[in-house]
Amino acid sequence: MLLFGMETLSIVALLHGPDRPGLVARVAGWIFEKGGNILHADQHRDAEENVFFQRVEWSQPGRAADAHQTAASFKTMAELELDMVCRTTVSDERVRVGVLVSRVPHCLQDLVFRFRRGEMRGELACVVSNHPELRQFCESVNLPFHHVDVQADRKSEAEETQLAIFKRHRVDLIVLARYMQILNAHFLTAAGIPIINIHHSFLPAFAGSRPYHQAYARGVKIIGATAHYVTAALDQGPIIAQDVARISHRHAVKDLIRKGQDLEQGVFAQAVRWHLEERVLVYKNKTVVFD
Amino acid sequence: MLLFGMETLSIVALLHGPDRPGLVARVAGWIFEKGGNILHADQHRDAEENVFFQRVEWSQPGRAADAHQTAASFKTMAELELDMVCRTTVSDERVRVGVLVSRVPHCLQDLVFRFRRGEMRGELACVVSNHPELRQFCESVNLPFHHVDVQADRKSEAEETQLAIFKRHRVDLIVLARYMQILNAHFLTAAGIPIINIHHSFLPAFAGSRPYHQAYARGVKIIGATAHYVTAALDQGPIIAQDVARISHRHAVKDLIRKGQDLEQGVFAQAVRWHLEERVLVYKNKTVVFD
Amino acid sequence: MLLFGMETLSIVALLHGPDRPGLVARVAGWIFEKGGNILHADQHRDAEENVFFQRVEWSQPGRAADAHQTAASFKTMAELELDMVCRTTVSDERVRVGVLVSRVPHCLQDLVFRFRRGEMRGELACVVSNHPELRQFCESVNLPFHHVDVQADRKSEAEETQLAIFKRHRVDLIVLARYMQILNAHFLTAAGIPIINIHHSFLPAFAGSRPYHQAYARGVKIIGATAHYVTAALDQGPIIAQDVARISHRHAVKDLIRKGQDLEQGVFAQAVRWHLEERVLVYKNKTVVFD
Amino acid sequence: MLLFGMETLSIVALLHGPDRPGLVARVAGWIFEKGGNILHADQHRDAEENVFFQRVEWSQPGRAADAHQTAASFKTMAELELDMVCRTTVSDERVRVGVLVSRVPHCLQDLVFRFRRGEMRGELACVVSNHPELRQFCESVNLPFHHVDVQADRKSEAEETQLAIFKRHRVDLIVLARYMQILNAHFLTAAGIPIINIHHSFLPAFAGSRPYHQAYARGVKIIGATAHYVTAALDQGPIIAQDVARISHRHAVKDLIRKGQDLEQGVFAQAVRWHLEERVLVYKNKTVVFD
Repeated sequence: MLLFGMETLSIVALLHGPDRPGLVARVAGWIFEKGGNILHADQHRDAEENVFFQRVEWSQPGRAADAHQTAASFKTMAELELDMVCRTTVSDERVRVGVLVSRVPHCLQDLVFRFRRGEMRGELACVVSNHPELRQFCESVNLPFHHVDVQADRKSEAEETQLAIFKRHRVDLIVLARYMQILNAHFLTAAGIPIINIHHSFLPAFAGSRPYHQAYARGVKIIGATAHYVTAALDQGPIIAQDVARISHRHAVKDLIRKGQDLEQGVFAQAVRWHLEERVLVYKNKTVVFD
Repeated sequence: MLLFGMETLSIVALLHGPDRPGLVARVAGWIFEKGGNILHADQHRDAEENVFFQRVEWSQPGRAADAHQTAASFKTMAELELDMVCRTTVSDERVRVGVLVSRVPHCLQDLVFRFRRGEMRGELACVVSNHPELRQFCESVNLPFHHVDVQADRKSEAEETQLAIFKRHRVDLIVLARYMQILNAHFLTAAGIPIINIHHSFLPAFAGSRPYHQAYARGVKIIGATAHYVTAALDQGPIIAQDVARISHRHAVKDLIRKGQDLEQGVFAQAVRWHLEERVLVYKNKTVVFD
Repeated sequence: MLLFGMETLSIVALLHGPDRPGLVARVAGWIFEKGGNILHADQHRDAEENVFFQRVEWSQPGRAADAHQTAASFKTMAELELDMVCRTTVSDERVRVGVLVSRVPHCLQDLVFRFRRGEMRGELACVVSNHPELRQFCESVNLPFHHVDVQADRKSEAEETQLAIFKRHRVDLIVLARYMQILNAHFLTAAGIPIINIHHSFLPAFAGSRPYHQAYARGVKIIGATAHYVTAALDQGPIIAQDVARISHRHAVKDLIRKGQDLEQGVFAQAVRWHLEERVLVYKNKTVVFD
Repeated sequence: MLLFGMETLSIVALLHGPDRPGLVARVAGWIFEKGGNILHADQHRDAEENVFFQRVEWSQPGRAADAHQTAASFKTMAELELDMVCRTTVSDERVRVGVLVSRVPHCLQDLVFRFRRGEMRGELACVVSNHPELRQFCESVNLPFHHVDVQADRKSEAEETQLAIFKRHRVDLIVLARYMQILNAHFLTAAGIPIINIHHSFLPAFAGSRPYHQAYARGVKIIGATAHYVTAALDQGPIIAQDVARISHRHAVKDLIRKGQDLEQGVFAQAVRWHLEERVLVYKNKTVVFD
């Protein structure tokens, strides 16, 4: 969606590929030649893998159409000349976010208010839930709400309905704000867009269900939450953000749940924010986060 | 070992057993009747298990011998009348600590200087290592050092030698300050005293060997260290203390190791301090830490 | 307000006064004699001041009226016999919370949702604001909203109106959820109930206005938030809770504000929760928090 | 000091000055032309001040003498062509560190062992103390120790002696490892090299003496430590690193001191490490830390 016609736009490029001398110089030189001014540039070399990663953000004076043309040209140059995988976005593009949620409301509510107070790029497009409870909240904040019942024996059908809703809302990113169903591998491929999940443990510890009960049983002194991209392997996708909090023997499972909720919503929002600001590169089941 | 003859001593009792009304009153009343004054008292009820835990510390005026007699009487009362498991210590007793270490020095060095600056109760009795490298350091701080070579095919023999050394030094607690050998189950039972280990990961994540390499491979954003009592199940004993630090894609394995060392020595020292101050109760593979 | 008639109620007593031997025994013995069972008991001795602090919570079987009678008797005993300052509450009493807020919504919104998901004792009674912006949110969650304009030259008058509203709603606690006006000393004494404020800095650093701008100018590497009881001395009341977050040179003032909001709402909610759970004792401009 | 003759050396340049388009391109292009390969590059724009900051590290194949020549040429280019303030170092240069310390040993001891285990660049050159207590430790680790008595009425004289010792040891950086004397402004100018201090509070809170006593009196819930460059204004120099730890009403001043020591040595070592790795730029009493 185009927001501005006349303002100076900025472009973000995320690129990675085989390292070689001169990459930083070529990228910076290309931008300078096109009249851009670099606002931020951050790069990383994986010395073991010999891979170069970069996030570069620059202001591009001129009309919006020109900025989009420049972004496309950059991508072509990066791919053909530098042998990089490259993704570009222009600041007048707004990512549309679809939410999958069950009954626990805090991650959704927290996210909604962060969007409202201008803390997040992009926009919330719709909420899809396998339970009806959060309809009222969504309607009170004018967010389209769709209840899609998920029966164990008709899960594929429900997932088709969910996908159709997200397509209708032209969603670019799906976030699971404490969605208590495992998605079929088919959903992931059919969606074709990134999916971010919040898991209520410090992964890889306590993957799977009821992680706070697991943590209580093991007697750990610190609990955590993990936001990650969803892959076909449950709770094993690339980790974007994690946070932790101290607990003691005084905390029962219900205290872990309460303390964990603050972690979950904070980590979840941070991962979504970083994604929306084009700060996350995935490489070999790990992330590079240019924060 | 007796340190003082005439000063007012204090007694610490750690007790746990089936909860029932009146326990706090009985303990406090008993101490009051014997002329003691409670300095600290902390209790915990496990509501699920209906177990009562308490740490109570009181000053006991009179001669040292009387304090020891009072401590013994308390233990008898707690066991027979209150049906508690009870352990008491008097402030003129100094726990003697034996150290097992390999080559990595930081946990040992840090511990030594904490003892020296008066931060820890008890005293370091001796160091046993399967490598000779740390002899010079130990000698520079007047700490008896014993090199016991551990050959894979003669491990039991080496462990007998280690145990004999610890017995000779009248050790009450063994601490593994980055000791890179797995102890046989026989060692644990033959020693008959608590053993504290520092593991360089946030357990239960990354148990076993090379945890920093495992953490790097998984792409976690936070690393940790865990101090726990050693049991026959590797890295699965009751956790005493944990701490964590943030990392990013910029950190190679060697950076994880460096950052982890600060965690390890801090967590290790804290666990040893809590143990020496009689703050840790073990119950069903978990700890209650009265900090 | 009475909630239950027949269930077993619990009583919390908070007491402090000159230390002397036998206090713990007397309190525990008294409760045992009255048929109560201690659920939690936590005490603290200030060795310098020789002051004893205790929070004791016990279940008191019988009718609600009996529990209230027992609580009153305990208070009398503690005051007359033990020379303590004592406050008791019974679990069927619900503290009513009044909110003062200006325009920044996050602390209010976060607090509302915590009450809704059952994380907080007591209940939100009403919101009073010197701006109209938050009316819609309050109405969407069925929370009475009152707009009281505060003109610089008619502040006392406005404060009288605010006080009248809080009295009408029978408020027991006032919380300032980012209220950007300094309250007159008269307000504090006329209110006669505790007032909790959230200050957006790590007090005592950066007291007064625009603390994030001050922090940015000083170049600190960590920012914080502080919840404290309000006293006549601005930002100098007893501190209840604090939290911090790391920043770097990359963070502009607007980033500090965004990161700080998470701190503010977390610290604010924790302080209000502790207060509502009767965990906070004020003594000589400091707090004892039995968490 | 030159360490290697034949290996590939790396060069670090730290530069800052007025921002303008093309800076990143020019720097990267220049390095590429000279045959260098950028290992890390990190830049920052202060949007308010319109200042550009950069740290760039590149490998420079060829002989050591050539690398030094290239570093000098880069500096000339950055200053004359780009109007930057620029500082360069080659990886065969080792910064020599002089320590000022009083009696409290932990920061010194911790630093010594970090150097020993290869965690720090550069080398410890000597220790100067106004007390004799730490002589034995220094000698046990083969570190030259100089006792310079500092009498209140003859401080300038003592400072001349200290400066002479540091000059004799060709020191490039002075670190105050808990040095409990205020340095005269003359010392700072006469030394002509950076000086890093560790202050045992979360500055700007509790500047001056006895900060843990101040923190205890104020009743804060978090304590901290701050490493900063020393300037003529006491405790007001540019902050390099800070860290914090939670405390409660249970902690007496001596507990704050003990817990604070861990903070102090960690923050101190981190600031010194960053300085030695050429990661710190000072600008207008603030630091840019390229970590």
